[in-house]
Amino acid sequence: MNKIAFIGLGNMGIGMAQNLINAGYKLNVFIRTASKSQELEGDFEQFQTVIETAEDADIIITMLAEDEALKEVTSSKTGFLQIMKKDAIHISMSTIAPETSRELYELHQEKGTHYVTAPVFGRPNAAAIAKLFICTSGDKIIKEKVKPILEILSQGVYDFGEEPGAANVVKLAGNFMIMASMETMAEAFTLAEKQGLDREKVAEFFGETVFNAPIYKNYGTLIAKKQYEPVGFKSELGFKDARLATKMALDVNMPAPLLSLVYNRLMSALANGKSDSDWVEGISGGVSKDAGI
Amino acid sequence: MNKIAFIGLGNMGIGMAQNLINAGYKLNVFIRTASKSQELEGDFEQFQTVIETAEDADIIITMLAEDEALKEVTSSKTGFLQIMKKDAIHISMSTIAPETSRELYELHQEKGTHYVTAPVFGRPNAAAIAKLFICTSGDKIIKEKVKPILEILSQGVYDFGEEPGAANVVKLAGNFMIMASMETMAEAFTLAEKQGLDREKVAEFFGETVFNAPIYKNYGTLIAKKQYEPVGFKSELGFKDARLATKMALDVNMPAPLLSLVYNRLMSALANGKSDSDWVEGISGGVSKDAGI
Amino acid sequence: MNKIAFIGLGNMGIGMAQNLINAGYKLNVFIRTASKSQELEGDFEQFQTVIETAEDADIIITMLAEDEALKEVTSSKTGFLQIMKKDAIHISMSTIAPETSRELYELHQEKGTHYVTAPVFGRPNAAAIAKLFICTSGDKIIKEKVKPILEILSQGVYDFGEEPGAANVVKLAGNFMIMASMETMAEAFTLAEKQGLDREKVAEFFGETVFNAPIYKNYGTLIAKKQYEPVGFKSELGFKDARLATKMALDVNMPAPLLSLVYNRLMSALANGKSDSDWVEGISGGVSKDAGI
Amino acid sequence: MNKIAFIGLGNMGIGMAQNLINAGYKLNVFIRTASKSQELEGDFEQFQTVIETAEDADIIITMLAEDEALKEVTSSKTGFLQIMKKDAIHISMSTIAPETSRELYELHQEKGTHYVTAPVFGRPNAAAIAKLFICTSGDKIIKEKVKPILEILSQGVYDFGEEPGAANVVKLAGNFMIMASMETMAEAFTLAEKQGLDREKVAEFFGETVFNAPIYKNYGTLIAKKQYEPVGFKSELGFKDARLATKMALDVNMPAPLLSLVYNRLMSALANGKSDSDWVEGISGGVSKDAGI
Repeated sequence: MNKIAFIGLGNMGIGMAQNLINAGYKLNVFIRTASKSQELEGDFEQFQTVIETAEDADIIITMLAEDEALKEVTSSKTGFLQIMKKDAIHISMSTIAPETSRELYELHQEKGTHYVTAPVFGRPNAAAIAKLFICTSGDKIIKEKVKPILEILSQGVYDFGEEPGAANVVKLAGNFMIMASMETMAEAFTLAEKQGLDREKVAEFFGETVFNAPIYKNYGTLIAKKQYEPVGFKSELGFKDARLATKMALDVNMPAPLLSLVYNRLMSALANGKSDSDWVEGISGGVSKDAGI
Repeated sequence: MNKIAFIGLGNMGIGMAQNLINAGYKLNVFIRTASKSQELEGDFEQFQTVIETAEDADIIITMLAEDEALKEVTSSKTGFLQIMKKDAIHISMSTIAPETSRELYELHQEKGTHYVTAPVFGRPNAAAIAKLFICTSGDKIIKEKVKPILEILSQGVYDFGEEPGAANVVKLAGNFMIMASMETMAEAFTLAEKQGLDREKVAEFFGETVFNAPIYKNYGTLIAKKQYEPVGFKSELGFKDARLATKMALDVNMPAPLLSLVYNRLMSALANGKSDSDWVEGISGGVSKDAGI
Repeated sequence: MNKIAFIGLGNMGIGMAQNLINAGYKLNVFIRTASKSQELEGDFEQFQTVIETAEDADIIITMLAEDEALKEVTSSKTGFLQIMKKDAIHISMSTIAPETSRELYELHQEKGTHYVTAPVFGRPNAAAIAKLFICTSGDKIIKEKVKPILEILSQGVYDFGEEPGAANVVKLAGNFMIMASMETMAEAFTLAEKQGLDREKVAEFFGETVFNAPIYKNYGTLIAKKQYEPVGFKSELGFKDARLATKMALDVNMPAPLLSLVYNRLMSALANGKSDSDWVEGISGGVSKDAGI
Repeated sequence: MNKIAFIGLGNMGIGMAQNLINAGYKLNVFIRTASKSQELEGDFEQFQTVIETAEDADIIITMLAEDEALKEVTSSKTGFLQIMKKDAIHISMSTIAPETSRELYELHQEKGTHYVTAPVFGRPNAAAIAKLFICTSGDKIIKEKVKPILEILSQGVYDFGEEPGAANVVKLAGNFMIMASMETMAEAFTLAEKQGLDREKVAEFFGETVFNAPIYKNYGTLIAKKQYEPVGFKSELGFKDARLATKMALDVNMPAPLLSLVYNRLMSALANGKSDSDWVEGISGGVSKDAGI
């Protein structure tokens, strides 16, 4: 069985790594802070540098918060690209700009190694129980090779072709759609509230009928109750995705006024000291504030 | 069994009336044009004036396109309010402003008759197979009385309390949410398209995963395929609902920028001669046009 | 010289009435509260009902805050239309919907009296020193007759043809333009401030160079200094005009996203208890709040 | 008298260079295409490389279309920074991001040369008759030294302090304000047109009264007449400025919905093949299209 290096033991990564260990994979994990590794159980090795973590791996999985962080662990002086085994595969699962994937794909090709794009949908609890949805793009043969690994982490793997950035486009488009849904619900429920109705009843109705999708059920309940804690995904990360989607739209001359709306909404949250709030609060709290309630 | 007068045999009404006939109710239907009644099968009587239609009815159901049409058949000189039997019940199922329900509720009370609000979610095919969702508001005891009738027409009846306008608020909030979802999908899919992806594949992915609700599946397919015919619900009716929601927001000082966005989007469709297009085209076509594709 | 009835001694009306008195006109003024008339100097008569005020007048000037108030003094049971002298002229100077002028024009025609539309641009201090700008529309011959009166009140009279509502269209379009300018300046100056610049210096530069118009100089200074008192024109009146402009746009299917933006901006001020604040605060304060400063 | 190198003989630069020649300065000009220099009259030398142009200059003026072009002529391998005389001054007059000025300022400091920021307001005809407005920022003593030169080119020099990027902030804020004014006028005039009024008369009124500033007069006439040729400033350059302003707003967490509106408006023009149209068309044409006229 392949040796996997896992880089990025954050809220999402920790559950994903655990699922791979549980499935019998030998894992090298990169640990900056000792505490994180204590959350992992079973057979794994830990290292304090990216290079040691990745050195003898057949598969390197990255799950990081930002393009910059990914580039640092990959192609910087301390990155693993320089020591990757020939034909080893980098599975890039972070939410990043498509152009970052395009660049890294080229760099891997030059080195004789492989880069496959595989961002995920799902919050940390979905990662923990292997119920993520994964989008992929990249070389066909490489995607075939990593499929068993992705299937361990998810309830479904969806492919978007060979262009390395394609799966990132879908991921960012999806996060935009989630933010837009939150704005939609926040406006609808707040309007209903100001008209004298019970927000929660309204949310419940839509979540059970025409909008009975996870996004509307889960976020709908939080928005209706104005329940903004615990923080699952920070406003500043939501804004980062709105920013990446805006950049991606800019690159192809795509006017997107609703994207601009949620971009400004979350930027206002950041400007008002709410960077660490849940993105649900960043959006729904902003709608409430504008409405004076 | 109660005698029901049915006023409003449009695309929606025709299926609803048929389901009541099928359930064994004796129906009086109001027919302006002979052709319409030929679509109905079974035992019913037809009349050419509202007053004759409603005269001996215990229940009067209205399902009309606009507030003005509803007021005309109800409280104008040729309306049925003047001849309603004492204690007869008017089930008002049109998509109208909450304040219209508030006014009509008062007028019924003055006459010793009843008004109950019961707008529906679902397109004509859902009406035909009795798979609507119905929201209700009004007097508790009256809602109990009409519940069996509403259950025949729907797959679920959801109550929003005694305030007569409440169910209209939910209906208009819901139609706003649907329009916002269409804008969301149109921007996301068009952005993906301009980035080189296949719109349909993207729509399929979201419809099967995080957005697996009827609205996203059904409208998502239409938007992805840019399939705007046959026309199910006209842009001008969609705009009417955006206008009513905007008025409802105005009445309670509710700033709603996303509502303004879809309002302007559909108004632009009307201004460009697309009043009779499907509202999916009104919204998605506008996004495409802005994007130059 | 003609006898003039003046109805609407508000902040604007008081200065206008004084200028007419100073010019030698005999004025009947309508006074609800005794205090107001004490601000007027010279030769005038005061009355406590609209009908008495208007009874023997050749010219009736109205300068009121709202369409409803204008209709009440004109065409309600206590309004002056019923007792206007044949061929007397109503100069309607309030900021109202064009359709209100269209209706009132018809009513006057039926009575054999005249209605001319003549809204004004300028704040109370401009009214006091006869430096208003006046837009007119209505019958040519009537406009000629009232021109000397309008010239006394203003530094310029601009005509927009015979259609009674036309001058109201210009007035509402102009108030929209003023609100849009305030949003423009508030965003620009706040952006400059957040980039470390001195708002006032920036405002001064633009007011002296490419934007050296009264609107940019005067409002620019207030916005730059965040000086929101004394209140010259209330946010709720600004919002009323945004609302009337929105209605006017609706009537002709005119999508206007910037109008929607200022409409929502001021509605948010109202929703946050700022109805009585100056509209400069309503707009500029909202921009600051969103920006977290 | 100082020797000046002038780099950037575009529509703007040509007039500026001529004015410096006329004032008696000895100019080296950088000429990529022979034709351009033929438009200059008087005493000047021309060179085909940036380095030759700048070699013996005391003052180097750059007036280019983009940040990238400026960086290329300045700090690239073929740029002049490497051969600038000690204590020579680079007057940077292009419309660029403040961060570009901040970077270049640092690079000049390291070399013992000087960078002063001095972007301009005005179209080519204003450049030709030395009626530009110039904003400056940078070291006080350097600004004093170049002031006589800037005064030759302009009708006014306004200073914004020592921070190198400050004048760029003002320039980009100003271009945003101009675009916002165009959107404002386009919406107002189109609304008036749809209400049956004469756009030109409306524009004339505002340009003579409350909005009697150059921007409203000049652009107002073009917008009213829908006169989009000859092209003075391309939509793609306007969009570039909207993009730079958006980036500048992002850097300081400044939500600016009106900036987003004009950004999307011009991006839509680009997406529809209108990159080379005048930015007046980019904005006003978009408003007309949405309005169906």
